Amino acid sequence: MTDDPYGLYRVVTPEGSMPQAAWRVDNTPVCRGGEILIDVEMLNIDSASFTQIKSVADNDPARVAEEVKKIVDDRGKMHNPVTGSGGMLIGRVKEIGSRIEARGDVQVGDRVATLVSLSLTPLELRQIHHVDMHNAQLDVEAVAVLFESGIYAKMPEDLPDRIALAMFDVCGAPAQTARLVKPGNTVVLLGAGGKSGLTVLAQARKSAGDGKIVAIEYGDAGCERIRKLGFADVVLNLDATKSADVYQAVTDALGGELADVVINCVNVPGTEMSSILCAKDRGTVYFFSMATSFTAAALGAEGVGKDVDLMIGNGYCKDHADHALNLLRDTPALLEVFEQKFAAGAK
Amino acid sequence: MTDDPYGLYRVVTPEGSMPQAAWRVDNTPVCRGGEILIDVEMLNIDSASFTQIKSVADNDPARVAEEVKKIVDDRGKMHNPVTGSGGMLIGRVKEIGSRIEARGDVQVGDRVATLVSLSLTPLELRQIHHVDMHNAQLDVEAVAVLFESGIYAKMPEDLPDRIALAMFDVCGAPAQTARLVKPGNTVVLLGAGGKSGLTVLAQARKSAGDGKIVAIEYGDAGCERIRKLGFADVVLNLDATKSADVYQAVTDALGGELADVVINCVNVPGTEMSSILCAKDRGTVYFFSMATSFTAAALGAEGVGKDVDLMIGNGYCKDHADHALNLLRDTPALLEVFEQKFAAGAK
Ligand SMILES: NC(=O)c1ccc[n+]([C@@H]2O[C@H](COP(=O)([O-])OP(=O)(O)OC[C@H]3O[C@@H](n4cnc5c(N)ncnc54)[C@H](OP(=O)(O)O)[C@@H]3O)[C@@H](O)[C@H]2O)c1
Ligand SMILES: NC(=O)c1ccc[n+]([C@@H]2O[C@H](COP(=O)([O-])OP(=O)(O)OC[C@H]3O[C@@H](n4cnc5c(N)ncnc54)[C@H](OP(=O)(O)O)[C@@H]3O)[C@@H](O)[C@H]2O)c1
Repeated sequence: MTDDPYGLYRVVTPEGSMPQAAWRVDNTPVCRGGEILIDVEMLNIDSASFTQIKSVADNDPARVAEEVKKIVDDRGKMHNPVTGSGGMLIGRVKEIGSRIEARGDVQVGDRVATLVSLSLTPLELRQIHHVDMHNAQLDVEAVAVLFESGIYAKMPEDLPDRIALAMFDVCGAPAQTARLVKPGNTVVLLGAGGKSGLTVLAQARKSAGDGKIVAIEYGDAGCERIRKLGFADVVLNLDATKSADVYQAVTDALGGELADVVINCVNVPGTEMSSILCAKDRGTVYFFSMATSFTAAALGAEGVGKDVDLMIGNGYCKDHADHALNLLRDTPALLEVFEQKFAAGAK
Repeated sequence: MTDDPYGLYRVVTPEGSMPQAAWRVDNTPVCRGGEILIDVEMLNIDSASFTQIKSVADNDPARVAEEVKKIVDDRGKMHNPVTGSGGMLIGRVKEIGSRIEARGDVQVGDRVATLVSLSLTPLELRQIHHVDMHNAQLDVEAVAVLFESGIYAKMPEDLPDRIALAMFDVCGAPAQTARLVKPGNTVVLLGAGGKSGLTVLAQARKSAGDGKIVAIEYGDAGCERIRKLGFADVVLNLDATKSADVYQAVTDALGGELADVVINCVNVPGTEMSSILCAKDRGTVYFFSMATSFTAAALGAEGVGKDVDLMIGNGYCKDHADHALNLLRDTPALLEVFEQKFAAGAK
C-alpha cells in the first residue's frame, strides 16, 4: 500500500482496517515520507485504561510496567485491549519525513506532545524507567511514529511539563464544553473532581455565566478540589453509578428542575443512566468518559422515554490544545489545583 | 422499594441499578399500580441481537428459539448479554394498574406495541410458536410488564401488523433524521437498504430537498430495494467495514466533497471509521447502529483529526411512532418496499 495520511500502510492485522481499529500495527522505527519519528520521554496512559491495568496488577508499579510492556509487545501500540483506550505521549522530534518537512511546521529537536491517541500510534517501547501510579504517567525510552494526519502540540515554555501533558490529554473536553454550554444554562457535571472534570468545570462556569452548576464526585479528596476551584454552586459527594440516588440528589439540589447540559467525566463504567436522568427534555448529555457503553446510553434513554441528545465525546476539535492552555493561564485557581494534583505524583 | 415510574422495584441484580442495566429483573406477571400487563403475541428481536443469536445457533430456527428461551430464563427479559440490545413486542393489554387507569389513555383489550426496549421489559416467556428467521420476529405466548414511564403505541388499523411493528422498532431513526437533515444538505447513509436505513432514506430525501444523498449498502438485494425506493442520488454496493474503500468511493461520488450529515444504520460492528471519514469538518455523524463502539468512534475521530459531532442514536424522541407511521402513509414507495420486504418472511 502507498503512503496515505492515515497510516494504513502500518496496519498488520486485520488487513484493510485503520490503525486505531487494528489489532496490531508495524512499530518499526523507520521514518516514511508522511511520518514524524519521536523519541518518547513519557507516556500518559488514559485514565480508564490505567484503572483497569492497576486492578489487574494489584496496584504494584512493577507489574503495571509489565502489563504495559506486554500490551505494546502484542499490539505494536499502547492500546488497552480491555478498555479500547490509549492515552498520549511527550517527546522530542527525532526525524521528519519529506512531506512533513515541506509543511514546515515542525523541526527536529522540537519538544512535542502527540494529541492523537496512543491507541493508534506505533510505539517501540524499549524501557520503562518509572511508573507514576497517581497520575498514570510512565517515564520511558521509546520511539513513536506520528502519521501525516496526526495532530500534536509544541510543549509550552511557561507551564510545567506534567501539567501541560495532563491538560493535553483532556483538552477536547473544555473546548467542547465551550461550544455546548450557553449563558444561563443549568449544568450537571459527573466526575467533576478529576482531570477532565476540573477543566470542564472551569470552562462551564465561564460559558454558563450565572447559570447553575452542580458538580458530582465520589470521595472527599475530589470534592475538596472542586470546592477549592470554587466554580460549582452545589457539590454532591455521590457514587455516579447509583442512578436512583443521583437523580434524587440532583432534583433536590435544583428544586425539581433538570439540566440543559449534562457532562460525564467519570472514569468508571455504569454511569450512563445517571447522566441521562439528570437532563431535561431536549437537553444534551455529553459523554467524555471512555467507559461509556453505547447501548446502555441509547437504550437507557429510550427505556425511560427521555428525548435528549446523546453525544460521544470527540477528543479532537479545532484549536483544542491552545484553548486548554489558555484556560489554564486565564484561570489561576485551575492552575493551582492542577499544580497540587500533579505535584503529588512527581518523582 | 416503593413503586416508581421507572420500575426500579422489579430489579433483582445488581441492586440499585435501573431495569435496563440490571442483569436480572423480576418477571412475575402480577400488575402493580404503575404497570400494564400485556399478553404478548410477537417479539421483534433487535437486528444486532438476532444476527448474533443466529450465528451462535448456526441459522437453525429451533436453536434460535432455545437461545432466546435461555436468555429470558436467565435474565427475566429478552436482553442479549452479548450485544446488550433488545427489541420490542406486540400484544393485547391484559391488566392495568390503578395509576395507569387514572391516566385514561389505555384500556384492557387494546392492541399495543411497546416502544421501550425488550432489554428492560420484564417478560414471562411460556412458549415460542414460530421463528421468522428473515424478519427477526417470534410468535410467542408470553406476558410482559410495562412500567409507568414506558412508552407504547396503539396498533394502527390501516397498516398490516408486521409492517407497523417493523416500523415502530426503528421509529426513532426517521424522526431524528427529520431534526438533523436541513434543506440542501449532503447526506451519506450507511446500511441504507435495511429497515431503519430505508425509512431514514425516505425522510432524508424529504428533509434534504435537492441535497445530494449517497446510499451505501452491501449486497445486491439491499441495493435493489434502495434503487426501487428511488430517493438516493448515488447507490454504492460496498462493505461499510472497509473504511478506506468507503472513503474513496464516497469522495469520488461527491467530487471530492464530504457530507454534512452521515447516518449509520448498519447492523454489524466496525463501521465507525467509515462513517467518520465521510463527514466534512463540523459535520454530524449519527450512529443508530447498536453495533457501534463508543471508544472506536471517539478515538477514531481524534485519531484522524476530524472535528465532527458524534451522536448516539436515541431510540426515543417525541411523537416518533406517529411520525414514522405518517411517513409510511405519505410515501407509497416506502410502503411498497416494506410490504415486499416483510411479506417474504410471513407465514
Ligand atoms: N473523550 C475524550 O476526548 C477524552 C479525553 C480524555 C479522557 N477521557 C475519558 O474521560 C474520563 C475521565 O478522564 P480523566 O482523565 O478526567 O480521569 P480522572 O482524572 O481519573 O477523573 C475521573 C473522576 O471521576 C471520579 N469518579 C470515579 N468513580 C466515580 C463514581 N462512581 N462516581 C462519581 N465520580 C467518580 C474520580 O474520582 P476518584 O479520583 O476519587 O476515583 C475522578 O475524580 C476517562 O474515562 C477518560 O478515558 C475522554
Ligand atoms: N438507535 C435506535 O434507536 C435503533 C433503533 C432500531 C434499530 N437500531 C439499530 O440499527 C441497526 C440497523 O437496524 P435495522 O433494523 O435497520 O437492521 P437491518 O434491517 O438488518 O439493516 C441493516 C442493513 O445494513 C446492511 N449491512 C450489513 N452489513 C453491512 C456492511 N458490511 N456494509 C454495508 N451494509 C451492511 C444490511 O444488509 P444485509 O441485509 O444485506 O445484511 C442491512 O441492509 C441495528 O444495529 C439496530 O440494532 C437502532
